[in-house]
Amino acid sequence: MEIIGVKVVVIGGGTGSFTVLNGLKNYTQHITALVNMADDGGSTGQLRDELGVLPPGDVRQCLVALSESPRTRDLFNYRFEEGALAGHAFGNLFMAALEKMTGNFADAVEEASRVLNIIGRVEPVTLDQVTLVVEEPGGEETHGEFKIAHMQFVEGARPNIRLDPTPTLNPAAKQAIEKADIVVIAPGNLYGSLAPALVVPGISEALNATTAKKVYVSNLVTKPGQTDGFQVQDFAAEIERFGNFTLDYVLYNQEPPSSELIEKYAKDREQPVGFEKAVLKAQHYEAKGGRFLSGSFVAYNSSSADPIGATRTLIRHDSDAVARAIMKLYFS
Amino acid sequence: MEIIGVKVVVIGGGTGSFTVLNGLKNYTQHITALVNMADDGGSTGQLRDELGVLPPGDVRQCLVALSESPRTRDLFNYRFEEGALAGHAFGNLFMAALEKMTGNFADAVEEASRVLNIIGRVEPVTLDQVTLVVEEPGGEETHGEFKIAHMQFVEGARPNIRLDPTPTLNPAAKQAIEKADIVVIAPGNLYGSLAPALVVPGISEALNATTAKKVYVSNLVTKPGQTDGFQVQDFAAEIERFGNFTLDYVLYNQEPPSSELIEKYAKDREQPVGFEKAVLKAQHYEAKGGRFLSGSFVAYNSSSADPIGATRTLIRHDSDAVARAIMKLYFS
Repeated sequence: MEIIGVKVVVIGGGTGSFTVLNGLKNYTQHITALVNMADDGGSTGQLRDELGVLPPGDVRQCLVALSESPRTRDLFNYRFEEGALAGHAFGNLFMAALEKMTGNFADAVEEASRVLNIIGRVEPVTLDQVTLVVEEPGGEETHGEFKIAHMQFVEGARPNIRLDPTPTLNPAAKQAIEKADIVVIAPGNLYGSLAPALVVPGISEALNATTAKKVYVSNLVTKPGQTDGFQVQDFAAEIERFGNFTLDYVLYNQEPPSSELIEKYAKDREQPVGFEKAVLKAQHYEAKGGRFLSGSFVAYNSSSADPIGATRTLIRHDSDAVARAIMKLYFS
Repeated sequence: MEIIGVKVVVIGGGTGSFTVLNGLKNYTQHITALVNMADDGGSTGQLRDELGVLPPGDVRQCLVALSESPRTRDLFNYRFEEGALAGHAFGNLFMAALEKMTGNFADAVEEASRVLNIIGRVEPVTLDQVTLVVEEPGGEETHGEFKIAHMQFVEGARPNIRLDPTPTLNPAAKQAIEKADIVVIAPGNLYGSLAPALVVPGISEALNATTAKKVYVSNLVTKPGQTDGFQVQDFAAEIERFGNFTLDYVLYNQEPPSSELIEKYAKDREQPVGFEKAVLKAQHYEAKGGRFLSGSFVAYNSSSADPIGATRTLIRHDSDAVARAIMKLYFS
């Protein structure tokens, strides 16, 4: 069967990529999800520590997003709740077992793709074991994604991000960017998910070489201690700084969340990402506002132990609205 | 696609069923593996204890035997060697996760069958949680398959076997036997695998109701403390006692193993199962001798952690020779 559709690459990993991919797969089969490999917390971190495998968690979420087999999809996100397996997402064990068996993470992704019957492809940005490193302006370094996710930066700091040791770019990732019609930077954890994908050497060159339209789907909420007070253009500027490229478009939400949700987030010191039309109009990219909030607040997975399933009724992107806005960019 | 071939049911679980199924699937698509649900040792036992699931181990081996996807097949038999997952066969985790997720072991078998791309069907003899109980002639009871596997019976004892609580027969198992052309009792652990399948109430009735030819593929070696000195007709008599039915055929190996292998087994007090042609000729069933030993001694799985892969160069059945002998019974 011929693969049809607009060639789209989605860079990121985690929930933001999940949402974008989940929507896009209804409009094109030509999807490549490029996934950062910095995660080292929770089930993923435990498997890295104990088995020495590459981080399966973010790859799993992207595979699940593209899956056309509902039951296997739910299975991959199922988390054991008891005994020695407690906390492990089944899909992580699947990836880890295959990697241990074949000695090759790429083979594990390939087989998981078959079993999950996915549309498109999922490609790790690198197949090297790496640790995320944050260098704060004062020169202090913090190592490890989980640790970094919980740290507070000096106010207004724009830290540097690198991977240690310096990884080799997955050639399939490079090729996908170069041949793409659209490259999407998914919303996500700026310093923990997006930057670790963008700073892999070679990504920048590919982003500058491609004729694809480059679009960032702006985050919806700020992260306390790291992106407090960030507006849409601040996120976009950081994306460009890490990838060392220029965006063509930024898609941002202009629909206010309910006051209940704003209050709920405020308790965790998280705020909706603000925007000023005049400021956005002055940028070199075209910023397009839309109604991108998920109204239904119904998660795809009912397992209470699942991190995505558990966060229903939160401020989330509407998969389909975002996917349509991305496709519209290509056709306009 | 139409399912073609002779309708064969294989009763057992574990390595013996694996061997028979692995051979049969090249000659018919109409295979149903009926699996005992008494196992409670190792990875399977731990999952039963910690998660409260039904025993996945023997079902996994039968699914793998019928699988047409080599990589998934290897994956299901892969055993983790390190960390909290050490000792678990991946396929067991697959079944356990699905059962926890759907609340239904039959659904788990169904989905595993799809993912493994199997020929035929695998049906647990019961979907109830049961414990194996051995009642020795003196009246003493031992509970639990793992414990029973390691016990020594009083010499010459023919203990009773039951399941506690009394299970309900899986209707699909009953139907498969009734509609079969051939019912095979696989070689295997007599009191730990075969008897627990045969004593499920309703199996006996189905075996007596069916017009299928009923054949037992005799064990190759004795089990110390349980079947010492057993000859082919002794195993067959126990099979008939537990299933309360009469066999039409018994297939037994008449090719002597190498003296090296015999010595190796003798160290564990295990002996090749003997036979006397005159004794076998006097039985009500037709006993057919053949050259059924595996000559290649090459296991299907190279993982050193796999129990089957690890037992290469042992006294084993030749899958294809056994399958051909079974098929020949139907066509003669």
